[in-house]
Amino acid sequence: MIGIFDSGVGGLTVAKEMRRQLPDCPLIYFGDTARTPYGNKSQAVIERYSAENTDFLLKQGATAIVIGCNTASALAADYLKKKYPGTPIFEVISPAVRQAVALTKNKKIGIIGTRGTIGSGIYAKKIKELDPAIEVFSVACPLLVALAEENYLDRPETKMIVRRYLSGLRSKGIDTLILGCTHYPLLKDIISAKIGKRVRLVDSAEEVVKELKVESYKVIKSAEKNKFYFSDLTPQVREITKRWLGGEVELVEVPSEN
Amino acid sequence: MIGIFDSGVGGLTVAKEMRRQLPDCPLIYFGDTARTPYGNKSQAVIERYSAENTDFLLKQGATAIVIGCNTASALAADYLKKKYPGTPIFEVISPAVRQAVALTKNKKIGIIGTRGTIGSGIYAKKIKELDPAIEVFSVACPLLVALAEENYLDRPETKMIVRRYLSGLRSKGIDTLILGCTHYPLLKDIISAKIGKRVRLVDSAEEVVKELKVESYKVIKSAEKNKFYFSDLTPQVREITKRWLGGEVELVEVPSEN
Repeated sequence: MIGIFDSGVGGLTVAKEMRRQLPDCPLIYFGDTARTPYGNKSQAVIERYSAENTDFLLKQGATAIVIGCNTASALAADYLKKKYPGTPIFEVISPAVRQAVALTKNKKIGIIGTRGTIGSGIYAKKIKELDPAIEVFSVACPLLVALAEENYLDRPETKMIVRRYLSGLRSKGIDTLILGCTHYPLLKDIISAKIGKRVRLVDSAEEVVKELKVESYKVIKSAEKNKFYFSDLTPQVREITKRWLGGEVELVEVPSEN
Repeated sequence: MIGIFDSGVGGLTVAKEMRRQLPDCPLIYFGDTARTPYGNKSQAVIERYSAENTDFLLKQGATAIVIGCNTASALAADYLKKKYPGTPIFEVISPAVRQAVALTKNKKIGIIGTRGTIGSGIYAKKIKELDPAIEVFSVACPLLVALAEENYLDRPETKMIVRRYLSGLRSKGIDTLILGCTHYPLLKDIISAKIGKRVRLVDSAEEVVKELKVESYKVIKSAEKNKFYFSDLTPQVREITKRWLGGEVELVEVPSEN
């Protein structure tokens, strides 16, 4: 069983991709909505929260962990891999990096993400490891998570804010842009319009699930039902989960530190 | 010594008012930036966090507590007053309510705040207790906290979002508007422009400190230095504290649950 955790609802885009690409593989989701967002928090805090979330998913029967959050992938993946050596830990950054490096022709890649993800410099580091000739341009877009969660998906204010964030990147001539936050696929249309239709977008949620498929998690078949746990199950979380995943899903509330 | 806690940086507007109105009274601040924001969280979670924050401030020598956060004031003040019967607990809602009821002439008051504060209905309830004839109109403005923290104070996007949030209130003919979130004083100019200059704004940070003065905390004189604790002292928190409070303040990091 695959366990996915995220700081809140953003990782639901990974859960959605799993249901699309691996419909037979049971999944269990933990969204740490009591302590969301992680985007502006420090590495020490995010490591501690990520380990608590992993403990919870393992206790619920997960056999592999997907960090469905770019911030936690950037700041806590190495820590978790060391702490849980027997458990496969997937993060959303490396698969997106491999895809972007494969796609770029002019060797200019852009990254957008939270302040935590961008500040970590991890995307640039991983890209340079694969191809040191690639130029990387990063921009933190801290307001986009709130706008996505408030369903400001097609509003003029959102378009203005996205344009403002991307204006620096536009002048760099990138041909590939990594959506380095699992909330951003919800804003894909606006981002594509503002960066230019010729720039290819790489969606980290989509890419990590492709990797799970390669790792042959597709062979797992089970009648087990998917479960979605949240550390704070507010009406807004219920509403977002319904809006983003569609249809009926089982929602359960549990405290953060379990 | 006065202890102020908030979910993060919003309560700094209360600290700022204290330094303006009660410059001789030492204060100690705790911002729970590791778990911020509280605005979309549930009552049970906010009660637990507020008690932990209060314990920390008492341990540091606070003799009175100011809940410098409207969400925690709305959802956890009663709980804290019961849990700490020997400690004066001030919240930011009642003083603002008294001021708004005193100011309104046409008996139409508007309230803006986070989803948690507005959903609690506490402002309407407290206003009706003082004067059942007053009509109350409330609007949740969940994006304004993020915009204030990102320093989007004078941007056209912020103006559009504020106008959108206030458009319903404008048609109600209110003459008084309570800024029911300690972040909102930073957006006072935009809010005033969009709701109309004739509508009087009531700032909950300003009002709670007036109440502290009445309670004669002004007589306390001490050479003790103010201290600002945060559960996650990121560069952004340092930057916001400097920008909002100005000058030099002592910043210390401590874990949330201490």
